[in-house]
Amino acid sequence: MPLPISRADIRAAYERIRPHIRRTPVWNLPPGTLGHDGPVSLKLEFLQHAGTFKPRGAFNTLLSQPVPKAGVAAASGGNHGAAVAYAAKQLGIPARIFVPEISSPAKVEIIRRLGAEIVIGGQRYADALGACNQHVSETGALSIHAYDSVTTIQGQGTVGLEWEEDAPGLDTVLVAVGGGGLISGIASWWAGRGIKVVGVEPEGSRALHASLEAGRPVDVTVESIAADSLGARNTGELVFAIARETVDHVALVTDAAIREAQRTLWRDWRIASEPGGAAALGALLSKAYRPKPGERVGVLLCGANVELSKLAEIL
Amino acid sequence: MPLPISRADIRAAYERIRPHIRRTPVWNLPPGTLGHDGPVSLKLEFLQHAGTFKPRGAFNTLLSQPVPKAGVAAASGGNHGAAVAYAAKQLGIPARIFVPEISSPAKVEIIRRLGAEIVIGGQRYADALGACNQHVSETGALSIHAYDSVTTIQGQGTVGLEWEEDAPGLDTVLVAVGGGGLISGIASWWAGRGIKVVGVEPEGSRALHASLEAGRPVDVTVESIAADSLGARNTGELVFAIARETVDHVALVTDAAIREAQRTLWRDWRIASEPGGAAALGALLSKAYRPKPGERVGVLLCGANVELSKLAEIL
Repeated sequence: MPLPISRADIRAAYERIRPHIRRTPVWNLPPGTLGHDGPVSLKLEFLQHAGTFKPRGAFNTLLSQPVPKAGVAAASGGNHGAAVAYAAKQLGIPARIFVPEISSPAKVEIIRRLGAEIVIGGQRYADALGACNQHVSETGALSIHAYDSVTTIQGQGTVGLEWEEDAPGLDTVLVAVGGGGLISGIASWWAGRGIKVVGVEPEGSRALHASLEAGRPVDVTVESIAADSLGARNTGELVFAIARETVDHVALVTDAAIREAQRTLWRDWRIASEPGGAAALGALLSKAYRPKPGERVGVLLCGANVELSKLAEIL
Repeated sequence: MPLPISRADIRAAYERIRPHIRRTPVWNLPPGTLGHDGPVSLKLEFLQHAGTFKPRGAFNTLLSQPVPKAGVAAASGGNHGAAVAYAAKQLGIPARIFVPEISSPAKVEIIRRLGAEIVIGGQRYADALGACNQHVSETGALSIHAYDSVTTIQGQGTVGLEWEEDAPGLDTVLVAVGGGGLISGIASWWAGRGIKVVGVEPEGSRALHASLEAGRPVDVTVESIAADSLGARNTGELVFAIARETVDHVALVTDAAIREAQRTLWRDWRIASEPGGAAALGALLSKAYRPKPGERVGVLLCGANVELSKLAEIL
């Protein structure tokens, strides 16, 4: 059975979104870097607009279909909300973002600054999602899903397209997994090319790991310092269907390993990273993923939406 | 009269230091970035070891001559001290760094972590320098000057070599100036090649600007938020002699423009920068340097040794 998303789909998405996104740098480092004896390629995707890879999927969704007059809506107090707000503003589309009361004031402020209307309500994410769905059904606004959507995944797959051009010949790439939109896009890009795509999830937030184990999408409980970006309870059917065919395996990292990766990134590299953005590196540093000698390893640094005062506290 | 430092000298320095330094990414961005209608090339040198360009000069100095048994010494509570400590540790050379009591505990801690012996004493930088000079004369240790030294400048010039390879065809590069070691190295690299090298100094710390005006190195008073990295009182003879021939002019930026550049770098780019590292961008954003339409402008981001809690306060 062909995969739901092809390289041609991702190339088409790239043509759509490239005037609007940043082509982020790929930094190819020599053997001996970050404790690994082979070359290491860092994709610096945290330098993307709005601080994560997510505008790629948001732009691709908004540019793939007619957008209703009511504009666009999303339920997210975090990186997805910021990305939808950013993309909508750039395209002149009204955006309404539904966030639960628990969302950090800093992230809500980012979303507001990016020009979206914010609706705060409810104790949990599910409450915000409910309010968003009601808004969509009442107004006909376009809803953008953070990961369980073909156009979202096509957009995130463009990370792989750029990375391959700038670092040909990688053996393995390490990619953090929340809902799995990013990894299923990247793994669709590299499917059947002999490149091992390895997911990285926190031990306490392992939706994809559990689903691959169960052979179907299953709910997990979420308890991790990276929950604000990697805290999906379920990957959904589409991500699962792609990942089952294209992802080599999922490595699990402890919260301590994520913290240590954040510390290493700031102390030795002057890169400020959020927990989810440091998780893939955490797998390499903690040996949750052990490359073979000389293996050419790519590590995706996918997000930097951290409060600096909080990052300062953990150093 | 030939310049004191040639392209061949800088190439030789690069061969010496390249196993020890990071080749930092150059990010070539399309027209319309950062408020400029022409292409903008960012050299991400803050990703260098020890958080600034300075290990280039330190390694080149240590690898250009026999190092005495007493090792190496420097007077600096800041970026130069950290760079010398880093380079000495990598080469297995004992390092003693003299810092005044006013130095920030965070920077002293960085220097200590990098493996150097620290001697804290005296109220001012001059006291630390006096103690360092006494140590050098008593022990025969090698002293590394932060800017007024041929081998230091050769090393810093390798930033230009890498940048030219990764961004051929620039019209102009903007480079922050403290003592002037960095800009005189870069301007030596590009001398006579039709590339305009523009210095950027804070209005309150303009050693090179004042010297070019006076026609000789002169002392200035220093009062700027970037004083901890750009706060040299005098460029010295060597920097002046090179800069007079090779630097197009020095643009002066206000402290407010530097702060705004720091804010822009974090808010829109997720780059944490110290004031001195953001000064060159501040010249572009505040129009202290006004490029012509379509001009191909390079901006050097040269340092990230900022305390995150303090950066958080100014956002």
